[in-house]
Amino acid sequence: VIQLSLGSIAKVVSGRVIGDPEFVVDAVSTLKDASNTALSFFANRRYLAQLKDTSAGAVLVQEGDLGVAPCHAIVVADPYLAYAAISHSFLPAYRSSLPVVENHIHSSAVIAPDALIAQTGVIIGPNVVIDAGASISTGVKVGANCVIGPHSSLGKNTVLHANVSLYSNVAIGENCVIHSGAVLGADGFGFAKNGEQWDKIAQLGGVRLGNNVEVGSGTTIDRGALSDTVIADGVKLDNQIQVAHNVEIGANTAIAGCTAIAGSTRIGAQCTIAGASGITGHLDIAPNTHITAMTLVSRSIKDSGAYSSGTGMMPTRDWKRSVARFRNLDDMAKRLKSLEHSADIPKGK
Amino acid sequence: VIQLSLGSIAKVVSGRVIGDPEFVVDAVSTLKDASNTALSFFANRRYLAQLKDTSAGAVLVQEGDLGVAPCHAIVVADPYLAYAAISHSFLPAYRSSLPVVENHIHSSAVIAPDALIAQTGVIIGPNVVIDAGASISTGVKVGANCVIGPHSSLGKNTVLHANVSLYSNVAIGENCVIHSGAVLGADGFGFAKNGEQWDKIAQLGGVRLGNNVEVGSGTTIDRGALSDTVIADGVKLDNQIQVAHNVEIGANTAIAGCTAIAGSTRIGAQCTIAGASGITGHLDIAPNTHITAMTLVSRSIKDSGAYSSGTGMMPTRDWKRSVARFRNLDDMAKRLKSLEHSADIPKGK
Amino acid sequence: VIQLSLGSIAKVVSGRVIGDPEFVVDAVSTLKDASNTALSFFANRRYLAQLKDTSAGAVLVQEGDLGVAPCHAIVVADPYLAYAAISHSFLPAYRSSLPVVENHIHSSAVIAPDALIAQTGVIIGPNVVIDAGASISTGVKVGANCVIGPHSSLGKNTVLHANVSLYSNVAIGENCVIHSGAVLGADGFGFAKNGEQWDKIAQLGGVRLGNNVEVGSGTTIDRGALSDTVIADGVKLDNQIQVAHNVEIGANTAIAGCTAIAGSTRIGAQCTIAGASGITGHLDIAPNTHITAMTLVSRSIKDSGAYSSGTGMMPTRDWKRSVARFRNLDDMAKRLKSLEHSADIPKGK
Repeated sequence: VIQLSLGSIAKVVSGRVIGDPEFVVDAVSTLKDASNTALSFFANRRYLAQLKDTSAGAVLVQEGDLGVAPCHAIVVADPYLAYAAISHSFLPAYRSSLPVVENHIHSSAVIAPDALIAQTGVIIGPNVVIDAGASISTGVKVGANCVIGPHSSLGKNTVLHANVSLYSNVAIGENCVIHSGAVLGADGFGFAKNGEQWDKIAQLGGVRLGNNVEVGSGTTIDRGALSDTVIADGVKLDNQIQVAHNVEIGANTAIAGCTAIAGSTRIGAQCTIAGASGITGHLDIAPNTHITAMTLVSRSIKDSGAYSSGTGMMPTRDWKRSVARFRNLDDMAKRLKSLEHSADIPKGK
Repeated sequence: VIQLSLGSIAKVVSGRVIGDPEFVVDAVSTLKDASNTALSFFANRRYLAQLKDTSAGAVLVQEGDLGVAPCHAIVVADPYLAYAAISHSFLPAYRSSLPVVENHIHSSAVIAPDALIAQTGVIIGPNVVIDAGASISTGVKVGANCVIGPHSSLGKNTVLHANVSLYSNVAIGENCVIHSGAVLGADGFGFAKNGEQWDKIAQLGGVRLGNNVEVGSGTTIDRGALSDTVIADGVKLDNQIQVAHNVEIGANTAIAGCTAIAGSTRIGAQCTIAGASGITGHLDIAPNTHITAMTLVSRSIKDSGAYSSGTGMMPTRDWKRSVARFRNLDDMAKRLKSLEHSADIPKGK
Repeated sequence: VIQLSLGSIAKVVSGRVIGDPEFVVDAVSTLKDASNTALSFFANRRYLAQLKDTSAGAVLVQEGDLGVAPCHAIVVADPYLAYAAISHSFLPAYRSSLPVVENHIHSSAVIAPDALIAQTGVIIGPNVVIDAGASISTGVKVGANCVIGPHSSLGKNTVLHANVSLYSNVAIGENCVIHSGAVLGADGFGFAKNGEQWDKIAQLGGVRLGNNVEVGSGTTIDRGALSDTVIADGVKLDNQIQVAHNVEIGANTAIAGCTAIAGSTRIGAQCTIAGASGITGHLDIAPNTHITAMTLVSRSIKDSGAYSSGTGMMPTRDWKRSVARFRNLDDMAKRLKSLEHSADIPKGK
């Protein structure tokens, strides 16, 4: 069990303790679920009633909400950011180590003689394979059963969880986290039609990730056909995202699970793309674009803003009727126009 | 080749042989494809003609259909359930063993000293890594190259196929099957916006699976942010499903491939969710809800029943016309109302 | 750096050098990005201006475009196919080898005594597990940490990249490429409802791939329930595709990323299916069918052609209005008909 005093927490979150700085908490919890030894946070005004009724031992709040908090408090400018910052202090030690590794490199790891492994703080797990010309910087942790292809590189303090596959020429920056089952650098889907068959086009580019990038489990990022596939600093990719060859994703863009991005599309910085969306190839998406869940983006987006496609969920019986009418929507529109004409009413567009 | 007499099969399926109990079959087949040494089953009245014409050596049927069966028969209450039950007897032995494992634990497995491994019936394949504090119950089989994180646990008779990744604090119940490439316990997609950047929120919860859960290949189940992600008894998850942090799935709910479920959504028991659907976050889905393929569920569902979204497939040329009209549907609706008004016809809603 | 003379390239692509056959290029590039030592290609008339302005050292062109090319040229019948052919010559040697393997089989590989491994040109990487009765033909390369189940087989010159999982009875043809994280032969999603619970149906079939098949990273192909799941010659599957049990895919069909295909559906030859599409079960899709991105195919397709579903992307504010009207589309259609009736205008369908 991890135990932290409010005083020590206040230092991490740049906050001010209201109450007993020696008071000790042993967990972070929601306002609703918190025990009287837990730290909670008030980050969404919808939960004001929960703040009032919380059993938490202490709470992260803004100055103005101090009066509502029924417990010890730490005053911060942004309680959600403060929660994000302190949450890492509650990670058990086994979450950031690889206890089965006796020394820094497990004896079962297979490492090419010319691979460059930094001397400081590197942990390489069991059955890891590191191929020729790869380079591993200081502070890097490589989980069990990862494979790192030739001439790939991991920047300082980057973490690969178990079972990650990197092909050749995959350059990952610093402080990145790559989750299990992710595959970076597989061949882009490039074929030329030759009569009835498809001739494979060699995928000669690589993959480049900036710093502070997170890649979710099962996400795949293909290598480029001629130049590289590029993921900028601070990009966050959730699980099972498909990034095709030569896609470029701008800084700090966040993409939720199961989204598919086709080849050569460029997504600007600071975008948010909700889950299960599809983005077709060769598009340009403006910075600060926001895509709602399960949207098909099939044209470039020049103006920042929110975009959607699809229809709303309905009872299946009703939906079938709407779907049937949708098939004849063009006919309906023409008939409406014709009626307007005969009725001599000012026409719509 | 596996050979079973009708008599022995009848015992497994609690049925009654009509014909020769010594007759031997060596396969299970559809009515259409069955050879004269195969066992078939009649479970769908649409295939009545196929029952009449089958070349099967024997067939599982209900009492009332005996007259149609042109071969030996085993009378059962539910032929489809009987087929499900007997199908397991036709699995070749190599499907349920790990022949490359000399003894019960392969010599290449890396197991932390304090991991608890049951003494009975456990099989651990080559290159498996089991981290500190993990526990493995009797009858568990762990396929080659699996990684089991610290403080994770596998209940009795659970099977992990090859290349499964479990992070820390993943508790799996009894009689579960986890297929290759599945990842349980990766970090939920939790970040707090800090200016232009995203601050990572430590994901402090775990993952809990009940008993008799099946998890398909490539499916990802993230750990909770504060509390656990929870999958109840009897849930069946197909391949490449994404289950985000703090999702709860009720007992016996079955979800088909490539469905994405966003964070903190609670799905009731006994639901069926067809493939490639998307369910947004923080929703409550009532028990016995049925979702058709590729539906976006973006609101909570209070009433059981069937729900859908999207439009029906059309020739692309026609579809483009409907899509163009869909953009102006609000305008069309207003013009229709205006026409009704001028025509003095009783208005619709 | 790979250096090739135009003369040697012309031989590979069956072309004719216009200019200096001794001129040496060291890369393939787009017309726009090419350096003066790069080879480019003119395959799309939209880029005519780029051809005129290219800095490339040489270019693959058709006879008729020679006048536009400002550099050395190789005249070919089809520049895109010529580019596909020559691209493989620019792969660095480390892309087609496994440098960490000292001899042809890495010492850490675990191979069942009765597995058949060809004597010529086979490379088996570290930590590979090959189970009983498996067979590996000449020229096969198996990447690190792959698992090959009992009685599975790999045809001549097939390549498995790292971390591929094959269950039992997966038969792969010649010259296939299977990318990392792919899972072939996991159980189909087959259960019979037994009261409130699901009884598992043993999946007794296998998986069969023809020759020249490519399977993308994270793609899953389930084994059949009774007979096999079958992928014909020349099929190209992109990343994260889900192929359910007993699906059949015809020759040379190409399917883009994240498409889901439900059980027992048969897709004809020469189809193209764009990304993130969903195809429900038990359908027949005609050869030469083309499906646009994110389409739900929920009925069989008898006539070749292009098919689509969904709606077009719109600003979210406008989209919400269209979605609201879509819910009442049946009502709108009825009111339109009623207006037509009262206006005595010839009715639409």
